[in-house]
Amino acid sequence: MPLKARVGIIGLGTVGSGVLRLLAQQGGFFSSRLNIDLTVSAVSARSAESLDTAPAGAYRTTDPMEICARPDVDIVLELAGGCEGPLAWISAALRNGKHVVTANKALIAAHGPELFPLAAKYRRVLAFEGAVGGSIPIVKTLQESFVANDIDGMACIINGTCNHILTEMTDRKIPFLDALKEAQALGYAEADPTLDVEGMDAAHKLAILAALSYRKFVDYREMSVTGITQITPLDLELAGESGYAVKLLGVLEPGPDGNLFAHVYPALLAKGHPLASIHGVSNAVFVKGSAAGSHILSGPGAGGLPTASAVVGDLIHVCRQMGNNLFSEHTVNCMPREEKMQLVPIGALVSEYYLRFTLNDIPGAIGEIATLLARYGISINFALQKVLPGRAGVTILILTQKSRELDVRDALAKIHTFPFVAGKTQLLRIYR
Amino acid sequence: MPLKARVGIIGLGTVGSGVLRLLAQQGGFFSSRLNIDLTVSAVSARSAESLDTAPAGAYRTTDPMEICARPDVDIVLELAGGCEGPLAWISAALRNGKHVVTANKALIAAHGPELFPLAAKYRRVLAFEGAVGGSIPIVKTLQESFVANDIDGMACIINGTCNHILTEMTDRKIPFLDALKEAQALGYAEADPTLDVEGMDAAHKLAILAALSYRKFVDYREMSVTGITQITPLDLELAGESGYAVKLLGVLEPGPDGNLFAHVYPALLAKGHPLASIHGVSNAVFVKGSAAGSHILSGPGAGGLPTASAVVGDLIHVCRQMGNNLFSEHTVNCMPREEKMQLVPIGALVSEYYLRFTLNDIPGAIGEIATLLARYGISINFALQKVLPGRAGVTILILTQKSRELDVRDALAKIHTFPFVAGKTQLLRIYR
Repeated sequence: MPLKARVGIIGLGTVGSGVLRLLAQQGGFFSSRLNIDLTVSAVSARSAESLDTAPAGAYRTTDPMEICARPDVDIVLELAGGCEGPLAWISAALRNGKHVVTANKALIAAHGPELFPLAAKYRRVLAFEGAVGGSIPIVKTLQESFVANDIDGMACIINGTCNHILTEMTDRKIPFLDALKEAQALGYAEADPTLDVEGMDAAHKLAILAALSYRKFVDYREMSVTGITQITPLDLELAGESGYAVKLLGVLEPGPDGNLFAHVYPALLAKGHPLASIHGVSNAVFVKGSAAGSHILSGPGAGGLPTASAVVGDLIHVCRQMGNNLFSEHTVNCMPREEKMQLVPIGALVSEYYLRFTLNDIPGAIGEIATLLARYGISINFALQKVLPGRAGVTILILTQKSRELDVRDALAKIHTFPFVAGKTQLLRIYR
Repeated sequence: MPLKARVGIIGLGTVGSGVLRLLAQQGGFFSSRLNIDLTVSAVSARSAESLDTAPAGAYRTTDPMEICARPDVDIVLELAGGCEGPLAWISAALRNGKHVVTANKALIAAHGPELFPLAAKYRRVLAFEGAVGGSIPIVKTLQESFVANDIDGMACIINGTCNHILTEMTDRKIPFLDALKEAQALGYAEADPTLDVEGMDAAHKLAILAALSYRKFVDYREMSVTGITQITPLDLELAGESGYAVKLLGVLEPGPDGNLFAHVYPALLAKGHPLASIHGVSNAVFVKGSAAGSHILSGPGAGGLPTASAVVGDLIHVCRQMGNNLFSEHTVNCMPREEKMQLVPIGALVSEYYLRFTLNDIPGAIGEIATLLARYGISINFALQKVLPGRAGVTILILTQKSRELDVRDALAKIHTFPFVAGKTQLLRIYR
């Protein structure tokens, strides 16, 4: 007897239409080889034009809430995006006994603590592979393949827009705003790019990866989140000359007392690091499992078809879970709000730093800076003084040895009182 | 109600003891958060010393067949290796209604066509994530995450021994035999390294990946399999100077008439290719999904704990499948022998080639070779003539444009009749 599952789809944008295409292409295989018969029984979309693309026989509506209540829907795919609507729809769907698949990272990051316990209560699956890293199977890997591992650390490139902009800025030495405008023209950046370029989208995804890795709720609002708007082509050039690439990273590392280091910032990566060669809109996760060792998973971080691939993968996963009586693993690792991990403040970091000073060109400036850094216990790995064509004053680059971030910040505050300092100092962390 | 599963383990070598360690470490988590209570109820090993390491209360025997028959075993982990014994044990276990987890690539590649239908007949799971790429989650990715994809192609580094040897030969310009001896001393190569260095171990794994990707049986005995024993430091140096790394690759590509290109050979990879930076014993799979796009998964390709991580991941997977009535996806993609894919012969390849000629130093030799290649329709991308210190005669390197392999081989046969040819010509393929 094949398993019959009736699917309701909310949203027929690029992901939703990708899902319809994949179901049409692969439906025969699902039926003949996996013994799973899928029917799209109901669809909601905002426009009549979109609804016209729904499969024959599917109920059509502009009201997503209808999809979540219909008795002929077993599994709801929430592919509309946004937060408030989807929270209401998914909650209703779970209460009505439906399994749910979503690719909505903002929703899972913010409302996971309500939604996962709700799914567990009604013994339904809430699957979300497409929420992080597009078609990269990182959610399944953390929940299933690495189930016997503690996660010793993670660094990830999980915002394709930022990675694309940084790649273009590096390769073509163009400023951030020019690269952003091009990315918008290419459709790689939104009209309002704030969520991406300020790092908040990466923070949403990092919070989800943290919850999967450490099995407690991690609140992205408590992270230190720095985007890429302050990165200049000069930084990328100086970093490159020193053997580093600059990437926007989400970083996880277990800290003392069961706390977690979980922050988003642009970081220098030695060019030999596997993440340093992830270019353009690609995403990648570098994850260290206590038993499995160090792994890289990389691929397209977004896009209609890659995300649809993840959604349909989840859909089949849900079908396979429908018959069993275990709590689904997709409900167990994201915990209610009370089980929240405390974050290690980013100021507690001990790291190597990239410091770029902009100074008036007076004799002895580099000496005074080095002396002051030494007074704060900060040793120097590499120092370079340059007069740059077309740039007033002098640029000094210092790469520090491992130092406490609080010491570095204190030292910078002191240095900024020096009369020869002509501009804001750029501080970037080096990820090893 | 928690799910209770009783585990029988065959083999307590590095993987088996790794599994015991992970079960001890993670058992509390499995029980409290996944609702799965695992007990090791029976263990077999060849030596009494090994059996002493079994958990208290577990039945101990030196006869693996006992494990497969005991009523207090629900899931058998076959971690002994070899082929004949495991085939008999796993067959018996499935017939006795037990699920099976194995990391035995030779067995799955050779006997999958008997074992998977048997598992399906008795509605039991036969899981084998650890058989390919150690802890890299490639089996799960192909079977589950990419279930909505056709696989447009794959290239993989799936033999850590060969990759380690090639890395050392490249970095330190040492000959194959020296690198092999070192690898043996380090435990990275077997006392009899034939299976690894001649490429057959990679062929076993490639056959498994092919069956997962194309859902039909692929016979590794029909592949063209070339190992790395004929690669010289000179090849690695000339390739490196031209911007390439040399890796032992397994390559899959759909061919005409539903046939499959599936062969193992050392290939040149442009240094920008993500597989070119996979060094040492690491493994990596580059896979192109029709919807998901291009992905890389990399990590430790072998080793006790990484493989144990994959085995315990499979064990939890089996537990989750125990309650449902679908055929497990772990039984459906490897098909019986009758559904065999025909292979595209490697001679049908159209590729760029690396050709290294060893010639007596006579005027006009390079001209004669170029002229002859042209007569066979083979155009040249790059040519280099070098007199190498300590090497008699002259070395000529030619990188061809895209050419038919049969034409290249015909041309080489002709060239080998030239009186000034002083040694065998090295032919390597360039993977794009």
